[in-house]
Amino acid sequence: MAPSDAATAPLLPSFVQGAWREPTSGTLVRDASTGEGIARVGSEGLDLAAAVEFGRTVGQASLGALTFHERALRLKALALALGEVKEELYAVSAQTGATRRDSMVDIDGGIGVLFTYASKGRRELPNAQVIVDGQPENLARDGSFGGQHVYSRLPGVAFQVNAFNFPVWGMLEKFAPAFLAGVPSIAKPATPTAYLAEAAVRAMVDSGLLPAGSLQLICGSVRGFLDTLDVRDTVSFTGSASTARTLAAHPRVLGGQVALGCETDSLNAAILGQDAAAGTPEFDAFVASVVTEMTSKAGQKCTSIRRVIVPTDRIDTVVEAIGARLAQRVTLGDPRADGVSMGPLASVEQRDEVRRSIDALLAGGGRIVVGSREEPAVLQQDGTVAPAPGGAFLAPVLLAFDDADADAAHEVEAFGPVAAVLGYTDSADAVRLANRGGGSLVATVASFDPETVASLVSGIAAFHGRILVLDRDDAKTSTGHGSPVPHLVHGGPGRAGGGEELGGIRAVKHFMRRTAIQGTPAVLTALTGQWRAGAPSQAGDEHPFRKSLARLRIGDAVVSAAREITLEDIGHFAEFTGDTFYAHTDEAAAAANPFFPGRVAHGYLLLAWAAGLFVDPAPGPVLANYGLENLRFTTPVSPGDSVRVTLTAKQITPRENEEYGEVRWDAALVNQRDELVASYDVLTLVAKEDAAAASPAE
Amino acid sequence: MAPSDAATAPLLPSFVQGAWREPTSGTLVRDASTGEGIARVGSEGLDLAAAVEFGRTVGQASLGALTFHERALRLKALALALGEVKEELYAVSAQTGATRRDSMVDIDGGIGVLFTYASKGRRELPNAQVIVDGQPENLARDGSFGGQHVYSRLPGVAFQVNAFNFPVWGMLEKFAPAFLAGVPSIAKPATPTAYLAEAAVRAMVDSGLLPAGSLQLICGSVRGFLDTLDVRDTVSFTGSASTARTLAAHPRVLGGQVALGCETDSLNAAILGQDAAAGTPEFDAFVASVVTEMTSKAGQKCTSIRRVIVPTDRIDTVVEAIGARLAQRVTLGDPRADGVSMGPLASVEQRDEVRRSIDALLAGGGRIVVGSREEPAVLQQDGTVAPAPGGAFLAPVLLAFDDADADAAHEVEAFGPVAAVLGYTDSADAVRLANRGGGSLVATVASFDPETVASLVSGIAAFHGRILVLDRDDAKTSTGHGSPVPHLVHGGPGRAGGGEELGGIRAVKHFMRRTAIQGTPAVLTALTGQWRAGAPSQAGDEHPFRKSLARLRIGDAVVSAAREITLEDIGHFAEFTGDTFYAHTDEAAAAANPFFPGRVAHGYLLLAWAAGLFVDPAPGPVLANYGLENLRFTTPVSPGDSVRVTLTAKQITPRENEEYGEVRWDAALVNQRDELVASYDVLTLVAKEDAAAASPAE
Repeated sequence: MAPSDAATAPLLPSFVQGAWREPTSGTLVRDASTGEGIARVGSEGLDLAAAVEFGRTVGQASLGALTFHERALRLKALALALGEVKEELYAVSAQTGATRRDSMVDIDGGIGVLFTYASKGRRELPNAQVIVDGQPENLARDGSFGGQHVYSRLPGVAFQVNAFNFPVWGMLEKFAPAFLAGVPSIAKPATPTAYLAEAAVRAMVDSGLLPAGSLQLICGSVRGFLDTLDVRDTVSFTGSASTARTLAAHPRVLGGQVALGCETDSLNAAILGQDAAAGTPEFDAFVASVVTEMTSKAGQKCTSIRRVIVPTDRIDTVVEAIGARLAQRVTLGDPRADGVSMGPLASVEQRDEVRRSIDALLAGGGRIVVGSREEPAVLQQDGTVAPAPGGAFLAPVLLAFDDADADAAHEVEAFGPVAAVLGYTDSADAVRLANRGGGSLVATVASFDPETVASLVSGIAAFHGRILVLDRDDAKTSTGHGSPVPHLVHGGPGRAGGGEELGGIRAVKHFMRRTAIQGTPAVLTALTGQWRAGAPSQAGDEHPFRKSLARLRIGDAVVSAAREITLEDIGHFAEFTGDTFYAHTDEAAAAANPFFPGRVAHGYLLLAWAAGLFVDPAPGPVLANYGLENLRFTTPVSPGDSVRVTLTAKQITPRENEEYGEVRWDAALVNQRDELVASYDVLTLVAKEDAAAASPAE
Repeated sequence: MAPSDAATAPLLPSFVQGAWREPTSGTLVRDASTGEGIARVGSEGLDLAAAVEFGRTVGQASLGALTFHERALRLKALALALGEVKEELYAVSAQTGATRRDSMVDIDGGIGVLFTYASKGRRELPNAQVIVDGQPENLARDGSFGGQHVYSRLPGVAFQVNAFNFPVWGMLEKFAPAFLAGVPSIAKPATPTAYLAEAAVRAMVDSGLLPAGSLQLICGSVRGFLDTLDVRDTVSFTGSASTARTLAAHPRVLGGQVALGCETDSLNAAILGQDAAAGTPEFDAFVASVVTEMTSKAGQKCTSIRRVIVPTDRIDTVVEAIGARLAQRVTLGDPRADGVSMGPLASVEQRDEVRRSIDALLAGGGRIVVGSREEPAVLQQDGTVAPAPGGAFLAPVLLAFDDADADAAHEVEAFGPVAAVLGYTDSADAVRLANRGGGSLVATVASFDPETVASLVSGIAAFHGRILVLDRDDAKTSTGHGSPVPHLVHGGPGRAGGGEELGGIRAVKHFMRRTAIQGTPAVLTALTGQWRAGAPSQAGDEHPFRKSLARLRIGDAVVSAAREITLEDIGHFAEFTGDTFYAHTDEAAAAANPFFPGRVAHGYLLLAWAAGLFVDPAPGPVLANYGLENLRFTTPVSPGDSVRVTLTAKQITPRENEEYGEVRWDAALVNQRDELVASYDVLTLVAKEDAAAASPAE
């Protein structure tokens, strides 16, 4: 590296207010393996307040023009666009010290988050802009007043402060749910690896797929950013506990104006069950998992295993097995050299920080049982094996503590290829030790014994955001201790920061506000896009099955004629279907049942007849009945009773990239005394447009 | 009042570590109307840390021995026990300045919260100890690995700091969800009205229904309580924003160890829609609501209307109408005097505080348009009308601001019978003004115009915890602007504190931790009590319909024979049911449908046949099929196909006070190629015990 890099390396631009802007100065960041200068990272000259305002206005407007499904499709397109430039991103990623495998976790992992939110957004959200939460609550005896919880997007920006270890995944796992919610993101990457985040954002911007203002990137310091935020905005922070505390102490956060979610330190545990003796598949899977977590990303993962909690009499066996596997499997070096399986830390400063943590662990009662904190010889790009003074290399270090309760083991997070082995006496002791982490992101329980699993998991659940139960049946297919998946929450209580990210649609809701709306059924229907009992409905001359989505309206209804049910009908149905349950076939036995007055009609007979009563048989826009939900039989139907059904369009969900959409119908079946006999939702697929021939009424 | 009260009034005991304990000293609190001393309130000599430890050990153990349903039934019994002593509580409540109507809001309202949680706990939660959250997530192609979110109770105490205005409701609305979650409460009432909270807790203790350690009461100061809490515990705080800030700045909160939920100041708005001219039902309902909120509880409600936002040209009309209704309806006095409709504030100190706030509003540009801040003459217990120097009386005060944007109007909360009228120009202006509250608990929108409602509600939703839409159709049945209902969330963003209470089961989850569990289907089934596909099942010789809950196990299954479906069957079903939809009756039209290969079987035929295939017809423990959920038809069934069904016991929910329980069965219908044709959950009622005659196999 030339000494002049600090003055001549390119200034890393930020993407602010819709344009790439260079700062006026910056801190030099270097290649993790070679120490060569890469770029100067800074924010001097950028207008933070203007960026926030741009998000609140332009970003809010452009995202507000899209529904959840439209945003989801945009996420899918962005994922595909990033996939196109993966190889370029891998090359940039190697400079951070990441092996190809590490880069896949970061880059493919980030793309995977976009795909998951693209898919869940369309499968689990309506094609609308608010999320209806939970069931309607009736609050008046006559049904004229009720309540419904609704999520609507926050009207500000999502300010996202990311850590250095996953420049792409860390950014995208915050961006995707905010985007789906309709809230513009301002991403602030960590300085040492900001150039990789910049490359990813550049690909997204170049794709032309980002709605204006939906994503801004501010590289370098964002000192004072909380002063620009208010009750409209949120902050998601991943990083050190000390920085999190500083943010939490800001008046805007203390005063409850700005919601702050943190993901900070975590001394994650892996517990080897008493049953998992050496030679069992669980023992092997456990050892493999510890080695993976120590070396993947050079242990720079907030989810890495830091505390290896094993039966006291098995400590030596575990240490030996981990040592052997590390020796066999791990080659330390420049990730661009063939055969390297573990790269350097992200920077020399980070390496020195980890060394200080190892020293603290040693001072706190630990001893090194595998590896060394000294300068290692490493495989270099030219194939030689030698120390690399400009690189940030550190060999894996396994420590053991004679006193499993030593504070250092539960409090000092060495953010690198470092873990500590602790012994336990029984399950209760293992639980106690795991929970001494004071709240963690994730723990692994390796056991094939159901009772061991139950007692360990129930004992540690309240202290953990995620628990992986590892055994012979999922050892091969498990997504791994250290890998958050977008479907499940990522975060943990206490020391882990108390935040929650991911978890599918759960994360989307963090960027929305839940409001309880109270009003009449008519008002609640209008505000939620879901028809509810008591709201106006229109049962006109035209059967609603004759209307395509272009003409169908919520509340369109059909009221059927009544049909009487005879004992012969019930007997015939029993015979035809084989459902000869005594309640339908044996008068005395039926009458003895606490719920029936005597022989009653089959519930499935009622469903089938209801369909016969409401169906409009000729070809038309209704294409299929693909399901049914929330069916309840509320009053038995006896021979001589008659039933009629009202079917009302309840919710309409057009699909963005199909010629049809989903229509949910409220079905209410009543008897001749107007008592509700059955209620349920009928799910249908309905064409968006009337076929010329199918809508003669038009 | 005798001057010696400060030394001789009784010391108010606290209920700590299972016993009533008197402090060694206390602050004198007085009757709000007369100034007579009532009790001395203090905590000197009580051991706070021991109380916390008692909750964590004894309270956790006793609540941990109960399921959700058992806890819910206990809540119901506690509600009934409190109902027995209502009149005694009303008498105590009158000393706080509450009218009988105010006392009903507090006492009956609190009892109502217990009833609601008793009901929801049994209807919406399993009879178990963990809550399964959301759908299972499959994370492996072969189904061998998946994830499931589970809530488990926090292992500490719920520390609950309550405000002076609702000593009973405020305590019970925090206690009920914590109790249902299984977390012991430590309630700390506000000093001025602690004697009423004490009376309510005494009734609960005396009932003998409280599990040991499940509720402790600490009257008086709890200075330093946060030092006794950690990651196991939570704090719920209702009170001033400044105290909330102090709590939030405590290192245990800043560091993320203790989760803090706050409900603080709120300048709630009521917006009169442009359409609601004088003479409309909405105008009248709006005026009535403002008057109610100004005078109920003497305006000492965090949900009271503080900002009356009306079209500028309608300010005078609104002021006049409010003034007239106040004059007509409100008689200020000692609540024990006949005819009094509004009592004093809770204390002279509180009255002085409100006067200072009125002065601040005046200094900030407001002018009084109805009422006066001066000492009022009031109706006394002896029937005379005169000033009551020892009482905390204040007449209702309505202000108006010429500048609707005056900061004071949006920032100064006068916590008494005080509101301010502000004018707006159009809906966007009304939204802007309402949101200037910086986050509020609740707003009312009075309008009968759908577009006005839609634009106002969508504009303010993200700044509000609850919105009441008031119109002619719910004016009479509405639960009211100022009344949180236990079914809906109570809380608001920003200035309102950012917390969330109530909202049915949502609040229960605040006292639990959500953890993502990963593992095999077998492990997830064991840990959640819900069978899922891929987990072991037992299809033995005995049909599971022959097993009562005493013998039925999750995973018990029946695999049916196959049955072929003919074209005749389909035609017959169409004829019998009347469901002649073309996909079942017209080969050419069916084939033209994008989803069908030709004529296919009715979905309802498949359901009915499946029942015929899995049913065991003779009387036995299975009493009824009461519903069905999550039905999806996944593959069309053509003539010549055959179907068979597997029914597996998925979840078992015994009812505590019935002879039966609910069993949910997983139904999977496949064709002769093992393709899934339909999947759904069958809901049945099953007897707890085998009847002697019905279990010959035993």
